[in-house]
Amino acid sequence: MPTQLDLIPQWLDTLINRIKPADLQNDIAVKARARIADLLVPAGSLGRLADIAVQVSTIQQTITPSASIKQLLIFAGDHGVTAEGISAYDAAVTANVCRSLADGGGAAAILAKAAKCNVEVIDVGVNSDLSDSKTIVHAKVSNGTGNMAVARASSREETLLAIKAGVEATQRHLKSDVISFGEVGIGNTTASAALFCAFSGIDPQIIVGRGSGVGPATLNKKIEVVQRSLDLHCPYFSDPIEVLSRVGGLEISAMSGAMIAAAAHRIPMVIDGFIASVAAYAAYKVINNSSIFDYMIPSHQSAEKGHRIVLQSLSMSPLVSVDLRIGEGTGALLAMPIIEAACRLMTELHTFTDAGITSPVIPEAIL
Amino acid sequence: MPTQLDLIPQWLDTLINRIKPADLQNDIAVKARARIADLLVPAGSLGRLADIAVQVSTIQQTITPSASIKQLLIFAGDHGVTAEGISAYDAAVTANVCRSLADGGGAAAILAKAAKCNVEVIDVGVNSDLSDSKTIVHAKVSNGTGNMAVARASSREETLLAIKAGVEATQRHLKSDVISFGEVGIGNTTASAALFCAFSGIDPQIIVGRGSGVGPATLNKKIEVVQRSLDLHCPYFSDPIEVLSRVGGLEISAMSGAMIAAAAHRIPMVIDGFIASVAAYAAYKVINNSSIFDYMIPSHQSAEKGHRIVLQSLSMSPLVSVDLRIGEGTGALLAMPIIEAACRLMTELHTFTDAGITSPVIPEAIL
Repeated sequence: MPTQLDLIPQWLDTLINRIKPADLQNDIAVKARARIADLLVPAGSLGRLADIAVQVSTIQQTITPSASIKQLLIFAGDHGVTAEGISAYDAAVTANVCRSLADGGGAAAILAKAAKCNVEVIDVGVNSDLSDSKTIVHAKVSNGTGNMAVARASSREETLLAIKAGVEATQRHLKSDVISFGEVGIGNTTASAALFCAFSGIDPQIIVGRGSGVGPATLNKKIEVVQRSLDLHCPYFSDPIEVLSRVGGLEISAMSGAMIAAAAHRIPMVIDGFIASVAAYAAYKVINNSSIFDYMIPSHQSAEKGHRIVLQSLSMSPLVSVDLRIGEGTGALLAMPIIEAACRLMTELHTFTDAGITSPVIPEAIL
Repeated sequence: MPTQLDLIPQWLDTLINRIKPADLQNDIAVKARARIADLLVPAGSLGRLADIAVQVSTIQQTITPSASIKQLLIFAGDHGVTAEGISAYDAAVTANVCRSLADGGGAAAILAKAAKCNVEVIDVGVNSDLSDSKTIVHAKVSNGTGNMAVARASSREETLLAIKAGVEATQRHLKSDVISFGEVGIGNTTASAALFCAFSGIDPQIIVGRGSGVGPATLNKKIEVVQRSLDLHCPYFSDPIEVLSRVGGLEISAMSGAMIAAAAHRIPMVIDGFIASVAAYAAYKVINNSSIFDYMIPSHQSAEKGHRIVLQSLSMSPLVSVDLRIGEGTGALLAMPIIEAACRLMTELHTFTDAGITSPVIPEAIL
């Protein structure tokens, strides 16, 4: 049997090799911390905004970081597992929401306008013909996945094509200061729960949640379907691409690919809710390099049950607490203005040096 | 001895009598909830954004609420208690920060630009002559307060003048969709801690925090100074205006006044950090009517020790978690875009009715 590395195509391997720790040039991290300490505010008073500003500095390799040019990539795909009756909505909703978002309607489109964030909607696996749409980016790999509870969701080739579609989406927006990734896909909380359980070994009972709003009976069925899928595919779980192929989704694989590309091209990325967080975890597993986390900024903790635990696995603490469970990147869109605020304070605040003050009046203040 | 009501001047009493529960016209609250349920997103998926949108609807008496026109009022004042050496910064810093904010520098001014929020800086009690500034609003009541640890901080008349300055500040901005209140005042975490302890009876050890960054020795001194002030003035704590006069600050009284006016004029207000939250509690005590809370929206939980407990007293849960302790309204400025987002979703999202759909595909989803 070939090693995992042999199974990763050359184009992906090249990208993975580009991913380095964000503070590669350590002098930028030191200079960024020094600038924060010099800002004309009480020492330490910026809290997590200081950490975010330093993180963006090390990624962008500048002590005047920016989060003005914002991009949200929304990936859409359908899930064969909906045949098991685990979703509150009919699978046809994916295509409708996809069109609505691409045409400027839908929750993420509205929030993006408010946050001055560009949006691109990419069909990587919707089970409807969307080819007439001029606003959707067409990168369809297949008409949805198969039902993971009875067979693999996708072929390995399809998964790699979806990852590549994600990579190419990020590469269309390399001028972005900050990038984020949303999704549309009826059934994708089920696939995401299966993915995280497959990667982490955690019991589905702990991770599976109500998704877009199922009741107790459907929730139990959802847990059972995830367990059945895990039992069917577990012999292959040592290979992350195989995990994505068997119990994942095309839009989730695309998100992982887009995240790998963002790290490779040194673009700070904002991680949205449950599905995006699982995609982040999957990206880490695929590249087997925790440096990718250096490029990730948390946003919110969604109301979806498993998100808290996935965030813990990513060592992320939410910036915004509003109990959203819309998906589409909506939570990331609420956090983007906070990240922009952090960068603006770092860049625009006057410094003690500017003001000709050598230290705070009482030295104790800088302890 | 006259009753409390007799001691409240006519202009303030008139204002207080205007404050009614926000859902006075109960049909607006019902209609707002019905519109939320009709929005083309999974039932309940908007989380706290739905609650905020409904709250703003009931305040503005419309089911198309708005938070586009934003106003931050920053009140500035000095504190005689700094003579006790309880702050990390020299009192002269108040005037400098005040000028900087009014001229577009300073943390709140930078964040306000990013949030498209107007800013007004009002001198109600800075212990410096700022009269040459054309950008500061001049409403000085006195050159700072007295040292509360040895005598009353302000006269009752001064406190009422400060409250009036706050009322007038809000009344200059009645066209605002949403309003917030920040402060500048070296020493004001000490005054705020004393105020909250006086109102609530809680031990200063639990409330007093590091403010702009004092070390352990100064923190102990700060606790002792607050306790000494409470011991000195406690015979008068049954009268809220007397509490504000004895252990408060002019900028804090002005904030309370501005909040009373916002509720009276039905403007949703965003409550910033520790000092603003104490001012909100003081406003409630002064008017003795919990309806004022209907008009308040939380923002963040600051890193200042006592803020968590004050927020609990206000039944508020923070929207943003970034451990700020800058003051100036900076936390409120980070929350304003979230409030705007909630209003935009309520107003701009398509509805099931628009789409000709009578109910979600699986009724369970609306349970």
